[in-house]
Amino acid sequence: MRFTKMHGIGNDYVYVDCVRQKPPADPAGLSRAVSDRHFGVGSDGLILICPSERADARMRMFNADGSESEMCGNGLRCVAKFVHDHGIATKPRLAIETGRGVLTVDLEVQSGKAVRVRVNMGEPILESAKIPTTLPGDPPVNVPITFDHPQGQLEVTCVSMGNPHAVAFVDEEWLRAGDRDLVATVGPKIENHAAFPRRINAHFVKVHSPNEVTMRTWERGSGITLACGTGACSVCVAGVLTGLTGRKLLAHLPGGDLELEWSEADNCVYMTGPATEVFTGEWPTA
Amino acid sequence: MRFTKMHGIGNDYVYVDCVRQKPPADPAGLSRAVSDRHFGVGSDGLILICPSERADARMRMFNADGSESEMCGNGLRCVAKFVHDHGIATKPRLAIETGRGVLTVDLEVQSGKAVRVRVNMGEPILESAKIPTTLPGDPPVNVPITFDHPQGQLEVTCVSMGNPHAVAFVDEEWLRAGDRDLVATVGPKIENHAAFPRRINAHFVKVHSPNEVTMRTWERGSGITLACGTGACSVCVAGVLTGLTGRKLLAHLPGGDLELEWSEADNCVYMTGPATEVFTGEWPTA
Repeated sequence: MRFTKMHGIGNDYVYVDCVRQKPPADPAGLSRAVSDRHFGVGSDGLILICPSERADARMRMFNADGSESEMCGNGLRCVAKFVHDHGIATKPRLAIETGRGVLTVDLEVQSGKAVRVRVNMGEPILESAKIPTTLPGDPPVNVPITFDHPQGQLEVTCVSMGNPHAVAFVDEEWLRAGDRDLVATVGPKIENHAAFPRRINAHFVKVHSPNEVTMRTWERGSGITLACGTGACSVCVAGVLTGLTGRKLLAHLPGGDLELEWSEADNCVYMTGPATEVFTGEWPTA
Repeated sequence: MRFTKMHGIGNDYVYVDCVRQKPPADPAGLSRAVSDRHFGVGSDGLILICPSERADARMRMFNADGSESEMCGNGLRCVAKFVHDHGIATKPRLAIETGRGVLTVDLEVQSGKAVRVRVNMGEPILESAKIPTTLPGDPPVNVPITFDHPQGQLEVTCVSMGNPHAVAFVDEEWLRAGDRDLVATVGPKIENHAAFPRRINAHFVKVHSPNEVTMRTWERGSGITLACGTGACSVCVAGVLTGLTGRKLLAHLPGGDLELEWSEADNCVYMTGPATEVFTGEWPTA
């Protein structure tokens, strides 16, 4: 089985062209096998690029544990690049069918290859019951929460982009990894805090200016990750809600940069970022 | 550039055939690029399979940080499998040139493919000054060392297989990973203990019977790893020196099983284990 390894600012998947190739019989099992970083290809999961009756292509996404997910912003950018660069559809605007409906993406093309992709990530969900959180406010903005840790307390702003996010604006010291990594120790305290009945993704954000931030993420169920696309969107929304940033934002994540815009026109969040093809390979099939 | 990803019980490298393909101009830089587990192929390093005037092939091994190493037992098994299966030399006994001289390996072949490989890992070094350690004895056998940790004290037996190892025979509780992982907390205390001037690899070994153990490793500079070939050899030697095991040993490592034998005939340690080809790929070159 032919595959292509791609990443969106470090969020990496094994991509399989199921338009021109027979789809795998057991994608969940295949995802577990290829995702293993020592015994497999090594990835955050498997993404199948399939034919669609409603769009230029359809993405099916499997996590490293074999579970299927609806959508992933970093993955969608790579799917769009694959569909374009490999000639499945060569237009600069593509429609991709995902578990959250058909999404429109815009490609920035250089020398025939897509280098950056703009994705409409939809409208943020701001009602606390739907995020969900028991914190006060729709949404909760700069609400203090306490936890068992020397750090003790932080103010968080909560937003859902289909999945729940808690954003804390913090000092420079939170950006430093190492022995005293605050994200690694405070992250799980927030993830599992009683105020978040379905747990939450925690983001620690240093504001450099109203249009530039650096962020680090503790992802629900995954820990520290290189990139979280919906998280970057939630940081943009939280920046506007707190008055700390404007509607357009450049976010530095550990794996690379994303540009965000919370549009006044349609209330949707637009994410623009790179998509990178790393290598192609042949996975042995019995 | 064509490559093959292979692993020896989870110790995985990117292998490049430089017999039939032009060798990379900058192998150190290439190793750093391909080894990255999110932005590259993902591996513990890069191994070049080169022509040799003195053997069937020559292996050159680069770590993930670009530094060059002399030898790796798990890597050597994979080199032997590659040389055989890809037709560079199809004999069941091969001579491979390494940074530690020309080593002889024996292949177990099934349906034309090498499945297991036996490697002569050389004679153990037992003089404390050469291991090196300041602990008493040549070698130190069951010498207590203390360190700042709730665990406080362990008895270690020290052996060099070209690189230094401290072996502690322990209870079942050391095999459990998780929040209270003893290997993760005691490992660095032993690695950096004052008795080991060049630091040391630490192994925690549960003896099931005189011919079977389970071991976990804290590797100098790498932390917890899936497999350490020279470490497994040192455990076999330490088992004989302490009287806890015989000269033939089956060792269960986190990444798989190895068979060891400290030969009475020639004083060498023989390691037998699997070598696995995972997939082939094409790495883009400018």
